[in-house]
Amino acid sequence: MSAPKKVVLAYSGGLDTSIILKWLQTEYGCEVVTFTADLGQGEELEPARKKAELLGIDPASIFVEDVREEFVRDFVFPMFRANAVYEGLYLLGTSIARPLISKRLVEIARETGADAVAHGATGKGNDQVRFELSCAALDPDIKVIAPWREWNLGSRTSLIAFAEQHQIPIAKDKRGEAPFSVDANLLHTSSEGKVLEDPAQDAPDYVYQRTVNPEDAPNDPELIEITFAKGDPVAVNGEALSPAAILTRLNELGGKHGIGRLDFVENRFVGMKSRGIYETPGGTVLLEAHRGIEQITLDSGAGHLKDSIMPRYAELIYNGFWFSPEREMLQALIDKSQENVSGTVRLKLYKGSVRTIGRWSEESLYSEAHVTFEDDAGAYDQKDAAGFIQLNALRLRLLAARKRRLAR
Amino acid sequence: MSAPKKVVLAYSGGLDTSIILKWLQTEYGCEVVTFTADLGQGEELEPARKKAELLGIDPASIFVEDVREEFVRDFVFPMFRANAVYEGLYLLGTSIARPLISKRLVEIARETGADAVAHGATGKGNDQVRFELSCAALDPDIKVIAPWREWNLGSRTSLIAFAEQHQIPIAKDKRGEAPFSVDANLLHTSSEGKVLEDPAQDAPDYVYQRTVNPEDAPNDPELIEITFAKGDPVAVNGEALSPAAILTRLNELGGKHGIGRLDFVENRFVGMKSRGIYETPGGTVLLEAHRGIEQITLDSGAGHLKDSIMPRYAELIYNGFWFSPEREMLQALIDKSQENVSGTVRLKLYKGSVRTIGRWSEESLYSEAHVTFEDDAGAYDQKDAAGFIQLNALRLRLLAARKRRLAR
Amino acid sequence: MSAPKKVVLAYSGGLDTSIILKWLQTEYGCEVVTFTADLGQGEELEPARKKAELLGIDPASIFVEDVREEFVRDFVFPMFRANAVYEGLYLLGTSIARPLISKRLVEIARETGADAVAHGATGKGNDQVRFELSCAALDPDIKVIAPWREWNLGSRTSLIAFAEQHQIPIAKDKRGEAPFSVDANLLHTSSEGKVLEDPAQDAPDYVYQRTVNPEDAPNDPELIEITFAKGDPVAVNGEALSPAAILTRLNELGGKHGIGRLDFVENRFVGMKSRGIYETPGGTVLLEAHRGIEQITLDSGAGHLKDSIMPRYAELIYNGFWFSPEREMLQALIDKSQENVSGTVRLKLYKGSVRTIGRWSEESLYSEAHVTFEDDAGAYDQKDAAGFIQLNALRLRLLAARKRRLAR
Amino acid sequence: MSAPKKVVLAYSGGLDTSIILKWLQTEYGCEVVTFTADLGQGEELEPARKKAELLGIDPASIFVEDVREEFVRDFVFPMFRANAVYEGLYLLGTSIARPLISKRLVEIARETGADAVAHGATGKGNDQVRFELSCAALDPDIKVIAPWREWNLGSRTSLIAFAEQHQIPIAKDKRGEAPFSVDANLLHTSSEGKVLEDPAQDAPDYVYQRTVNPEDAPNDPELIEITFAKGDPVAVNGEALSPAAILTRLNELGGKHGIGRLDFVENRFVGMKSRGIYETPGGTVLLEAHRGIEQITLDSGAGHLKDSIMPRYAELIYNGFWFSPEREMLQALIDKSQENVSGTVRLKLYKGSVRTIGRWSEESLYSEAHVTFEDDAGAYDQKDAAGFIQLNALRLRLLAARKRRLAR
Repeated sequence: MSAPKKVVLAYSGGLDTSIILKWLQTEYGCEVVTFTADLGQGEELEPARKKAELLGIDPASIFVEDVREEFVRDFVFPMFRANAVYEGLYLLGTSIARPLISKRLVEIARETGADAVAHGATGKGNDQVRFELSCAALDPDIKVIAPWREWNLGSRTSLIAFAEQHQIPIAKDKRGEAPFSVDANLLHTSSEGKVLEDPAQDAPDYVYQRTVNPEDAPNDPELIEITFAKGDPVAVNGEALSPAAILTRLNELGGKHGIGRLDFVENRFVGMKSRGIYETPGGTVLLEAHRGIEQITLDSGAGHLKDSIMPRYAELIYNGFWFSPEREMLQALIDKSQENVSGTVRLKLYKGSVRTIGRWSEESLYSEAHVTFEDDAGAYDQKDAAGFIQLNALRLRLLAARKRRLAR
Repeated sequence: MSAPKKVVLAYSGGLDTSIILKWLQTEYGCEVVTFTADLGQGEELEPARKKAELLGIDPASIFVEDVREEFVRDFVFPMFRANAVYEGLYLLGTSIARPLISKRLVEIARETGADAVAHGATGKGNDQVRFELSCAALDPDIKVIAPWREWNLGSRTSLIAFAEQHQIPIAKDKRGEAPFSVDANLLHTSSEGKVLEDPAQDAPDYVYQRTVNPEDAPNDPELIEITFAKGDPVAVNGEALSPAAILTRLNELGGKHGIGRLDFVENRFVGMKSRGIYETPGGTVLLEAHRGIEQITLDSGAGHLKDSIMPRYAELIYNGFWFSPEREMLQALIDKSQENVSGTVRLKLYKGSVRTIGRWSEESLYSEAHVTFEDDAGAYDQKDAAGFIQLNALRLRLLAARKRRLAR
Repeated sequence: MSAPKKVVLAYSGGLDTSIILKWLQTEYGCEVVTFTADLGQGEELEPARKKAELLGIDPASIFVEDVREEFVRDFVFPMFRANAVYEGLYLLGTSIARPLISKRLVEIARETGADAVAHGATGKGNDQVRFELSCAALDPDIKVIAPWREWNLGSRTSLIAFAEQHQIPIAKDKRGEAPFSVDANLLHTSSEGKVLEDPAQDAPDYVYQRTVNPEDAPNDPELIEITFAKGDPVAVNGEALSPAAILTRLNELGGKHGIGRLDFVENRFVGMKSRGIYETPGGTVLLEAHRGIEQITLDSGAGHLKDSIMPRYAELIYNGFWFSPEREMLQALIDKSQENVSGTVRLKLYKGSVRTIGRWSEESLYSEAHVTFEDDAGAYDQKDAAGFIQLNALRLRLLAARKRRLAR
Repeated sequence: MSAPKKVVLAYSGGLDTSIILKWLQTEYGCEVVTFTADLGQGEELEPARKKAELLGIDPASIFVEDVREEFVRDFVFPMFRANAVYEGLYLLGTSIARPLISKRLVEIARETGADAVAHGATGKGNDQVRFELSCAALDPDIKVIAPWREWNLGSRTSLIAFAEQHQIPIAKDKRGEAPFSVDANLLHTSSEGKVLEDPAQDAPDYVYQRTVNPEDAPNDPELIEITFAKGDPVAVNGEALSPAAILTRLNELGGKHGIGRLDFVENRFVGMKSRGIYETPGGTVLLEAHRGIEQITLDSGAGHLKDSIMPRYAELIYNGFWFSPEREMLQALIDKSQENVSGTVRLKLYKGSVRTIGRWSEESLYSEAHVTFEDDAGAYDQKDAAGFIQLNALRLRLLAARKRRLAR
């Protein structure tokens, strides 16, 4: 790979990406463009702009954007249509943010004539893969710089030394090592590393940042209603809201009731296991609600097919293949299934759990006429079941007859 | 089908199966053998024996058996090795009991020279299918009588009249209609019908029988530890227990903390939707714990393969195909994966929820040496990730290059 | 089911459906509308019209239609996009015609105010299921009459007697029983029953009707080229043709070279096995060609996903679920994959076999620059493979380390 | 990776691996052990022994072994139980040999105290991956040396120079470049590269080495019978043979009739497409025969499940994951299905094609009593089909009713 001339850096404004910014300038002598996105991580963005300026970036090369609506509408919601869960439990909160950041990095590279992008993910994790696969899928010629895989600044001491050497301001609390590492966006907060590295040990309370401890949650349950249209939530308690506003509202509700905490050991795409603490308050509520509305609006053919491809879909997102033909093919399948997934779900939130307790829809397939224990007025002829069973049993009977024949 | 001469009836001792008993005698003039099983439904069995005697069954033709250990060891645990969940949420508590009952019915038919078996399931539900497919798979020539599909006693009034006409004792509270229908065994209690038939309406509190309302559960969380060997739980809090004893213990713990309640609309195999209330306290705890131990003992290849076939496995059990080649093939696959699924999980039970908070094992695949944020002493070379990503990206790059080429 | 008032009958003009026509009139006293379709079965349709008139059907109630283009464009081609093969070998020639016939039956029922449709399929086969599921999916209230399941005309003798009694003309060669039963359309000819019922015995030569015996095929191979656009064939040897014309041309070419014969034992949806002889000359050529063009235009992600869902897709079509949400979801997935499946394939036809021997496309993903044994000018860095393998091997190494640890 | 001290080299005796042998000695100064296996590639092994001696290898460090029986029994046959085909067409002939070679390399390393193994696969292909994943799975600490990824001998000229410099004898015809590259074993011969690199161009006739051109095959078809026991072939034309002897016999028969040629463009695991010419005469006959015997001995439940997981199984073998938990899990599933796959298949071999024309078995599930067009003496009640269809149609009807309701 030839040396990059102009690099778009995914820039948080924090110490690490500030060091990367400077390292790119010194190592490659290249021009740096910064991209700072508001994905709902709950941090001010303007300080990042100021810091970039301070580090000598031309204001025209500083991109600061609120992408929350796009994030939720084009990434989070499509994923939730699939009820996507990785390894049974993880709602993919980090995974789903990477493709959007990559997309904007590549687009800004085109706009600014940059030939490379850079990210601050380490060489051990999944995020480097997600960033780089996304970029490759969007621009076959873009270079991707991953400083953590290249430089010699592996220890905190050498990072701090580099920062001091280059006049990068260091906040007091950043001199020492953080007790764990955090990623956050509108969908979730994840924490991993350091104090969390022994999966036998409980995570300390202070790790949780976005949800109250269920034990501290309100003593009274709260009932809410979520309304869906074509598979996506469109209103909470009857109030129509934009995608990002809905997720924000659900985060408040879920967080208040201690919902969506997960202590998890997962298989990384790069081959090792890691332990993470995830908080996905709104997402956990949304998943339960989406399942609830699908219960009455999807038939078994559609539902079971969706269920059967979900693990593969979730694995693709986890592994970084959002921008791949196979993810898009699965999305086409899933989206096709959601045409009638509309209606309202009532949920009970209480001290760490969320449960569907009612659901209704103009597009419901539930037929009380068929299922009733009362007289069904001929909607269903029980005698049909005899033939249904008889033919389903035929091959089993032929198998049993063979077994008996061979046993003689 | 020629008329049966001797029928083994799945007999609960309740009013309905007593009526069936008498109806078989009068309709077919056939001899009746009764089979009453203790599956952990929490009812005394001896009254059923007495009632059968009262209805004129020869004591030698009355089979009363405690099959709880077999139920849990050979049916429940193998199913939990798969983390089987139907339609995302249902733990298959009713489905998994039917094959065992069918197996004993067929075996007793052989022992007693009966040519038929009979069950009390209606023509609208899944249980008729599960009973009859199981029987067909175990004996190709056995007849199965399903009185509910044959007789004219569809209304409560006509059932009561038939009972009175044949001197079948009727408990006072059985004269009217039950407000809902219940099935129970060691794994779960299900309730459906009548007051539950509108899926928009909350289930009344009195429906729940086996779990306390989470709001009434203890105000303090309880930590427990479950130990697994080769995929099955073998001890709770360090105390080794038999399969049925473990599930009993977990039921107590889960029930006390209000865990395992599910309000659910499902797709029946016979084509309609139904709404049920399920309580699976011990099973819900067990599922969470099993996932917890698999997190550190299964690699991604094994885990993801299991996840991908699980929906089909669950569907087979739900639909009544326990005794089918395909279920046995999937079981072989699942069991193969469990050879190292051993170790201990720590869980927190609190007001309706159960969460894994720690797990450890001699057979753990978790490698702190690899994942650590600290110096890993060369266990992992971050530069390898570059090549890994590069080759995973190659086809995406070729796709992107095509897209660019065609766009020109 | 109340008695039908007006029935649309799938009418071939042959003896059997003529008897059905008369039976519907006499049994139900209902009005009959006939629908005769040209699906490419190679029979004149006008005689069917004449015969219907002869049997007293009002000319306005006689529908005779050439649906070959619709058949190939909307049913055969979408299915071939999936490379659909049932149980490894069968190209679904009968299965795919039933939904179209059902669709027209239901539409004509609407147009003519009929409340029922009728078909001539027996109670043992798959076709009854395919007709009736399709009709149910298209009109929830339509009645379907299946005379073969209802009447007492099970034997040839009684059928002939009924025909004579009702003045239905009987062709001389129809008095005796046919030595086997045939179904044909533009995609294939199937033969089954009678002389073919012993799967150990070779099928007699006279069964084959549409393909020459490979031994009698030309001694010289023939090379042809098929051009595809978005997954569908659009030209043969450079000549653009309509869907039906392409399939007709491929049938001629395949049939002349003895291609597409299949002697097969399959699992019917109704639970039994049957043996059939299938001839699918054009379809066999098309399948090979489609695979050939996909080889260079699909990447592994898209291709492997398609392959993995294909068996389910084929099963759905075989079982009669063309008009189901799950088939439509899978179709959405498949169609999404075909956007760049364009280009040309060269094939060699010779004495029963067809092989791809060349393929090229503007949309090819094949990169000689990458794969070449010659100097690749840096397109591919072989050192990347080391990292790729290292990380793919990591979990295997951790597994091997555990095994060694436990063995100690 | 520290430098290897003693290396077991997969040694063919050819020029390339002789150069590797010498390069290992000179580059690493390490001791070399050679392993030369007879996998049925059709070459004498003793010359390899002599050449190794000539190159200075201690006779005790030269391992020459006939592993043909193990290859077919433990690798080829288990794979054929699954009807494994990669990307629709490729029978995995190269892929399946690599795990066995790796297994012996690792075992010999243990026996001889070597700390590394080496192979002669390039950095662009799949074989490097297959060798190295297999080795990692069998020994977590073994080093693997892949000289083609390390050295600077990329061109033929530099290779020849190195050989001359080190007194490695060079056969006359090896001085120039081969027009294509060949791999062979008892299952197949593959050819790729150079003259085959343009997938639009027909492969020249001289590429084919193991099968006659179909046009030159006998003018008369040949009928053969293959007998299976539990999924594996055990006899040809009634003669019981060992695994390797059976495959050898089928190769003779298939090769004589021009069967098993494949011109193929495939997706390599490393991300690029490549074009290969494969000849798998015996394997092609075996696959057809195995499908034939499964047709009458597997029910639809087992057969369809096998079909649905096959693509994943084939992909695992292709990608080099033979020794992985997920391949072993799938193998357990497949093997479970083969318990009754016994019986005999009659096949017709003729000018490039092989077709099943008869099959019979003591364990057949085919029931003429059920399927017959004649009177079936009550084996099957056609009226059952009505109920079967009715309940399968129920959800479709509810969907259609919803559609109608919403359209109003």
